[in-house]
Amino acid sequence: MFRYSRNFQFGGQVNLFQMLKRFIIGKPLHNQDIVREKLPKWKALAIFSSDALSSVAYGPEMVIAMLTVPGFVAYGYVAPVSLAILLLLGLVTISYVQVAKANPGGGGSYSVGKKNLGEIPSLIAAAALLIDYSLTVAVSISSGTDAIISALPVLIPHRVGIDLFVLFGILMLINLRGIRESSTAFVFPTYGFILGIFFLLGTGLYHALTGAAPVIPSSSLEAHFNWAVLFLALKAFSNGCSSMTGIEAISNGVPMFKEPGYRNAQVTTYCMSVLLGTMFLGITFLNMHFHLLQQENVTMLSQLAEGVFGRGWLYYYIQVLTMLILYLAANTAYNGLPPLLSLLARDGYMPRYLAARGDRLVFSNGIVFLSVISALLIIGYNGNTEHLISLYAVGVFLSFTIAQSGMVVHWRREGTAGWKGRALLNGVGASITGIVVLVIMVTKFTAGAWLILLAIPLQIYIFKRIHCHYQDMREQLVLPQEILESHQVPVRQGKHWVIVPVAGVNRVVANTLGYAKRLSPHVVALYVATDDVAYEKVQGRWERWNPGVELKAIKSNYRTILKPLLQYIDEIEQISQPEDFITVLIPEFETKKWWHRLLHNQTGFILRTLLIMNKRVAVTVVPYHLEK
Amino acid sequence: MFRYSRNFQFGGQVNLFQMLKRFIIGKPLHNQDIVREKLPKWKALAIFSSDALSSVAYGPEMVIAMLTVPGFVAYGYVAPVSLAILLLLGLVTISYVQVAKANPGGGGSYSVGKKNLGEIPSLIAAAALLIDYSLTVAVSISSGTDAIISALPVLIPHRVGIDLFVLFGILMLINLRGIRESSTAFVFPTYGFILGIFFLLGTGLYHALTGAAPVIPSSSLEAHFNWAVLFLALKAFSNGCSSMTGIEAISNGVPMFKEPGYRNAQVTTYCMSVLLGTMFLGITFLNMHFHLLQQENVTMLSQLAEGVFGRGWLYYYIQVLTMLILYLAANTAYNGLPPLLSLLARDGYMPRYLAARGDRLVFSNGIVFLSVISALLIIGYNGNTEHLISLYAVGVFLSFTIAQSGMVVHWRREGTAGWKGRALLNGVGASITGIVVLVIMVTKFTAGAWLILLAIPLQIYIFKRIHCHYQDMREQLVLPQEILESHQVPVRQGKHWVIVPVAGVNRVVANTLGYAKRLSPHVVALYVATDDVAYEKVQGRWERWNPGVELKAIKSNYRTILKPLLQYIDEIEQISQPEDFITVLIPEFETKKWWHRLLHNQTGFILRTLLIMNKRVAVTVVPYHLEK
Repeated sequence: MFRYSRNFQFGGQVNLFQMLKRFIIGKPLHNQDIVREKLPKWKALAIFSSDALSSVAYGPEMVIAMLTVPGFVAYGYVAPVSLAILLLLGLVTISYVQVAKANPGGGGSYSVGKKNLGEIPSLIAAAALLIDYSLTVAVSISSGTDAIISALPVLIPHRVGIDLFVLFGILMLINLRGIRESSTAFVFPTYGFILGIFFLLGTGLYHALTGAAPVIPSSSLEAHFNWAVLFLALKAFSNGCSSMTGIEAISNGVPMFKEPGYRNAQVTTYCMSVLLGTMFLGITFLNMHFHLLQQENVTMLSQLAEGVFGRGWLYYYIQVLTMLILYLAANTAYNGLPPLLSLLARDGYMPRYLAARGDRLVFSNGIVFLSVISALLIIGYNGNTEHLISLYAVGVFLSFTIAQSGMVVHWRREGTAGWKGRALLNGVGASITGIVVLVIMVTKFTAGAWLILLAIPLQIYIFKRIHCHYQDMREQLVLPQEILESHQVPVRQGKHWVIVPVAGVNRVVANTLGYAKRLSPHVVALYVATDDVAYEKVQGRWERWNPGVELKAIKSNYRTILKPLLQYIDEIEQISQPEDFITVLIPEFETKKWWHRLLHNQTGFILRTLLIMNKRVAVTVVPYHLEK
Repeated sequence: MFRYSRNFQFGGQVNLFQMLKRFIIGKPLHNQDIVREKLPKWKALAIFSSDALSSVAYGPEMVIAMLTVPGFVAYGYVAPVSLAILLLLGLVTISYVQVAKANPGGGGSYSVGKKNLGEIPSLIAAAALLIDYSLTVAVSISSGTDAIISALPVLIPHRVGIDLFVLFGILMLINLRGIRESSTAFVFPTYGFILGIFFLLGTGLYHALTGAAPVIPSSSLEAHFNWAVLFLALKAFSNGCSSMTGIEAISNGVPMFKEPGYRNAQVTTYCMSVLLGTMFLGITFLNMHFHLLQQENVTMLSQLAEGVFGRGWLYYYIQVLTMLILYLAANTAYNGLPPLLSLLARDGYMPRYLAARGDRLVFSNGIVFLSVISALLIIGYNGNTEHLISLYAVGVFLSFTIAQSGMVVHWRREGTAGWKGRALLNGVGASITGIVVLVIMVTKFTAGAWLILLAIPLQIYIFKRIHCHYQDMREQLVLPQEILESHQVPVRQGKHWVIVPVAGVNRVVANTLGYAKRLSPHVVALYVATDDVAYEKVQGRWERWNPGVELKAIKSNYRTILKPLLQYIDEIEQISQPEDFITVLIPEFETKKWWHRLLHNQTGFILRTLLIMNKRVAVTVVPYHLEK
């Protein structure tokens, strides 16, 4: 009657949840499947470059908007600012190709910093990237929604709803299913967008050359020097730098390329950089040429496409593809942050479970983590994340600076032929990107950059505290040498006290006591009565049964069961010897149907949870499964 | 090193929660304190009558509104309808005094029905009361908020927010603290309201008699017969019956009166009934006399008070007191429903934990239950619960009918002198209240009464299912006679298999194995590796330690730990004898600070929960408490 049945099935409610998970996420992948999840160049370009390429949807607008405040147009500054941005782009590209070469294991600035500069710089880079990736997701998704709202103003009130649906309903799910599937789905939008933009540029230039476009007042093209305007120009430059976010994605993702990883990554980076530069320059030129100004709820790219194509299907093609590539750009962060979190977790700076791959071989916990943080940003800014755009350049350039400083140290340490040239290249890169960080911090300080100054030290503090905890834990958990060398386990000596809290005389109690008696001869049944009637009744029934186990009955005048139990444990500890130990055996019955559980108070569950957390006793549950 | 420390303190996080709870709810009360929690008549009147008395804030309005549709005024019907309501009030009062006499234990129609009519009628009464009490809370709170909104229209947009604050922030908390405190706080509003209304009636009558008021067209006072108008009149009567809800509160609450409970309850009931009748009649007369019509966001009582007093402090006094007594009326349900739920729970028709008194000797779970249901009603109807008012009369009159039918049976069974007179009185009461139920059901069917026709059978079905489960459980849990008479516990025979899932070689594992070896010689350590490197490494370390416990290492290619463990348990069950049994020993370390817990995956917790729920094995946690 008390023995275990052999054909007990794994519970129904778990299966339902499992089925739902399987349907949404897909079946679990075998460890061996990880080898197949590698990307060819053309696919990698689509996945890794969407962040950088999509930024032409807002980058040129952000530059021009800064230099065209109402009643004042300083187009003369647009060309120098744009050129500066392009130069910086070239420099960063070349530097990052070197980073990818020296770090085929991926990990980007965090790994480079850790290897060459030490803990703190690497943690700064990690914190900067963490901020950057979260902002990338928030900004890209809300910009993507802006693109489609420009075309369909009826969607304006649903902005945040659309953002969150894309975030959780599409990006998170696709990424939880695994990267290969996502890459195939994402190739067409990227190439479709590139195609569309080049067709837009071609048609726009044709219009411009054939003179069908409005003429800009030539006075606005002059670049009169003025400190206030210089500050505006620097702000425009800061804004434009946001277009460079995403360059590092490829170097962080080298291990995801097909072999040879480094060479493929290098070629892909150059391709991306040339595409980005061309599109940025072309769009900026046309925006100026058609004298476009910033408008609410209509992006400048939408104005340009409408001006060039009219509201025909080509216009809608541009808007839809812009939306898609921006959502894809958000996806880039999903390829970047979870592996970084995994590295941080493996080094003990983030919770360990971020290091593990889930059912589908992706870092599931990291993916959920990123989605939640980004959702908070979107909700917090109500979907209007424009003024976050320049901020997220801070994170990127900070990590650029650290990565390239690290490379200088790296080349010097290696000391192979030509190391000085390479070190110089990265040194110049580090200095310039460092200056860019300062420029953005100064020009954007009041617009939110101060938040970054707070957030990075805070994150580093958290990293260190977590690291400290894991170190403490390791020290406490390591098996002492004497036990290791004794070649035996330290078997418990002393008396084994077994306490069985009982709720009366019933089959579950008998079952548990039968188990208890097998463990130890020192078994006490403890009954806590909440009123006098029950106190007398249970004692009476126990005496009638008289099972050879002592019943300790306690009246609890405050109707709590836990406190008397804890007091009793304390008493046992008082009278016992140092080598003695205590087990609390909790009789629990498990109901057959899930809703039956709602009909019983969860005393057993609460009891075992609190005892495990707070008392130095072993806690055993002897479940008794009801048949109906 | 592995022994238990004796001075381990009860965990910090629990204390914080406890402190907060103590601050809000108060310190736990001793079982003996229950005797002190009895009410004198004048306090009981304040607590129990607020439901009935407060209904004059909406009852007369509901009657007149039905008979004054735009362009049509049938004041001639008001007098007969009002008189019918008053007659019914008298009848119900006398009947309920008899109920209180025959059932000094309280419990009202449910108890009466159970004792005299059987299970189903008593459950119908219980279901009706459950609906009624929840509606009372929702309707009274939103009417109270209407009263204050009439005076301060600026609050209109915050209607639902105010409702929910009053519900959770005031009523629920006050009731969780205990009835005695609530009674003292609640005496002044009731008497203040009675005083205010009588002053309003006096002043209003003076104005009316001195002719300072508008004259009603005499044609509207004629009562021409017409089927459509009769239907309206019946609807008006249905609406007016809502004023009678609350009469039963006193008879349900007899045990809360000071001794002699029955006599005190009787006197209090008569007082309440006379007050209610007078106020109802007076307000109805003045509403008609001043020819008031229903308006949105201004109650008719507010119009009356403004007409009589002007917008002076007397007007605000009336509005504030009306608000307070209506909130108090909601409180009546808190005195009525939790004890009813407790009775139902003790009889096994509702979850058992609703039967227990909490820290403060009140039925805490029932109080929370009622608050949640009412909040759902308020939110569902967006605070506009006017059309629920007549519905909640259905529940009351249904339970009136059952209680009085029960009384007829009761008097007949007793057969003492004069039983026929008493039975006749209750029989007439039952017939008339039964007819009222039919009238309300018919006239209000499309306005929501059909919901009640659905809800009552559904609730009875739930009651029966719950009852059935508890009966099944009792049968399964009862200690078999042979074990009871054996005077011993059925000690487990056979081999004791102990499985210890380990995550590597460390101190926690050694600690748990030391415990395991004490339990049984048949100990197996089970290691589930999620990758090849870990698989080799842990096996290597185990061989070096070689502690005399077999390590069973399993590769889990899908990175799940639970499935291989469950498979291994199945294997053990295959090779074991029927009398053998299995214990799974889970090594767990407990962190020192609460936030450390976030840094570890909860594998141990998930493992033990799933094993307890799904497998016929004993599950033991041997916690290892980290020191820092």
